[in-house]
Amino acid sequence: MLAMQMSDSILINGSFNGAISALDRGFTYGDGVFRTLKVVHGLPEHWPAHYQKLVKDCSAIGIVCPSADEFINDFEQLFSIEELVAVAKIIITRGEGARGYNPPAITNPTRVMIKSNLPNYPQRQFDEGVMLHLCETRIGHQPKLAGVKHLNRLENVLARMEWHDPEITDGLMLDIANNVIECTAANVFARYGDLLITPQLDQCGVAGVTRNQIMARAHSLDLKTAVETIDLKQLLSADEMIICNSLFGVWQVRQLEQKKWVKQDLAINLRKTLHS
Amino acid sequence: MLAMQMSDSILINGSFNGAISALDRGFTYGDGVFRTLKVVHGLPEHWPAHYQKLVKDCSAIGIVCPSADEFINDFEQLFSIEELVAVAKIIITRGEGARGYNPPAITNPTRVMIKSNLPNYPQRQFDEGVMLHLCETRIGHQPKLAGVKHLNRLENVLARMEWHDPEITDGLMLDIANNVIECTAANVFARYGDLLITPQLDQCGVAGVTRNQIMARAHSLDLKTAVETIDLKQLLSADEMIICNSLFGVWQVRQLEQKKWVKQDLAINLRKTLHS
Repeated sequence: MLAMQMSDSILINGSFNGAISALDRGFTYGDGVFRTLKVVHGLPEHWPAHYQKLVKDCSAIGIVCPSADEFINDFEQLFSIEELVAVAKIIITRGEGARGYNPPAITNPTRVMIKSNLPNYPQRQFDEGVMLHLCETRIGHQPKLAGVKHLNRLENVLARMEWHDPEITDGLMLDIANNVIECTAANVFARYGDLLITPQLDQCGVAGVTRNQIMARAHSLDLKTAVETIDLKQLLSADEMIICNSLFGVWQVRQLEQKKWVKQDLAINLRKTLHS
Repeated sequence: MLAMQMSDSILINGSFNGAISALDRGFTYGDGVFRTLKVVHGLPEHWPAHYQKLVKDCSAIGIVCPSADEFINDFEQLFSIEELVAVAKIIITRGEGARGYNPPAITNPTRVMIKSNLPNYPQRQFDEGVMLHLCETRIGHQPKLAGVKHLNRLENVLARMEWHDPEITDGLMLDIANNVIECTAANVFARYGDLLITPQLDQCGVAGVTRNQIMARAHSLDLKTAVETIDLKQLLSADEMIICNSLFGVWQVRQLEQKKWVKQDLAINLRKTLHS
């Protein structure tokens, strides 16, 4: 039903009349990758970084990523300079295949771009911070897919189904070794003095574009950065905790279950840094 | 392209004119389950067991499985009593959803049935057995999804991409703890004297219908059965190794990398048992 309502918001291989085959390996096996990004006045934010990540993620599972030109055409068809802000979701799959895990000898990746509204985030999440649930669902280890934003996202779905309280913005996920990894839809950082630590993602998790940008720009706030394995106890002892993604940018975490952090300025300062 | 050629072989929610939305959560997150089974003269083999497993797998991820009647109608539309044998693949997803992992408050599962030909298995695989590759790709642990035949199958895809030798029938997959789990598209058993062991699947893997049936019927061949954690060394010391699924039934493994087993009768006897 939604597809009908939104048919002018979905491009499949560059066409508004496209369709997803039931034989598409994205549908049958989650055999693909995706990205979500903000489009401001028709221009995708941080596009070079997003495209680079798309190419890298496709490569991790052996898909040849479509050319940047094809995506630029999609953006031009879907978005307009008159629109203040919108969201683009890009999905690349290995394309159609016969039954069986073996990819066809020649594959034609499926390229999807979906336009949607930016969520109506409450202003207080930017001003005051957010509250997180601690997910019971653990993220399994798979080094071959660690860091990749692939379409096998059942763990995120199960984790997101754990809470219904609208006051809770996201859920923190640990891995099966009980280390802190990420939120269901955001990366995380913990600040200890002038050191900003983000979890190691070599066993699982998604290494997001905004996480990379924070690591590249934190020095401008006189912060050192490190990628480390941290457990929940270490996280709870942080001076400050923040979460980030490409849509909302950066939010402070004010509460994680029983733990509360006082309001501080890191999230606000990082948001400015990301747009400077 | 395949979809066009095969449009008379795909039912989506009972319709030949159905389509998969790019917003279907099966496509965006692999948020669903599937089954593959043999249809003989229009009748799905071991249907009660397959339907029971569909319901169980749907339930594991919080999807209400469509009624058996709906599937029976699909079988009647797609298959005919005149056809000796064919393959049905059933996919159930959580249905369409807006962007974000949170399932909609009201979901309408998507029900897909795809008809295809039974693979043209060489007769010698039944008579002489098969050769396996030992996969480098390990299966990650996720107890919440262990046993479930869900649509997050990138590990199987990566494992299947590891070999190109047509003499190799399937690949044996270990988990990240180096225990034997399954093949990319089959369950495994190892026989030690009169004891038939199949790997424990409480951390990962797919608990297939044929695996269950073998466990239920092995006593008729004077075999005891056990579900145990076994590593590769233990597997290689087995008197006999077999693999099974719903399409080919049971095959003996004659070779796994350097290890060879002499031809024996377990696979042949189990195949008979499954059809008695």
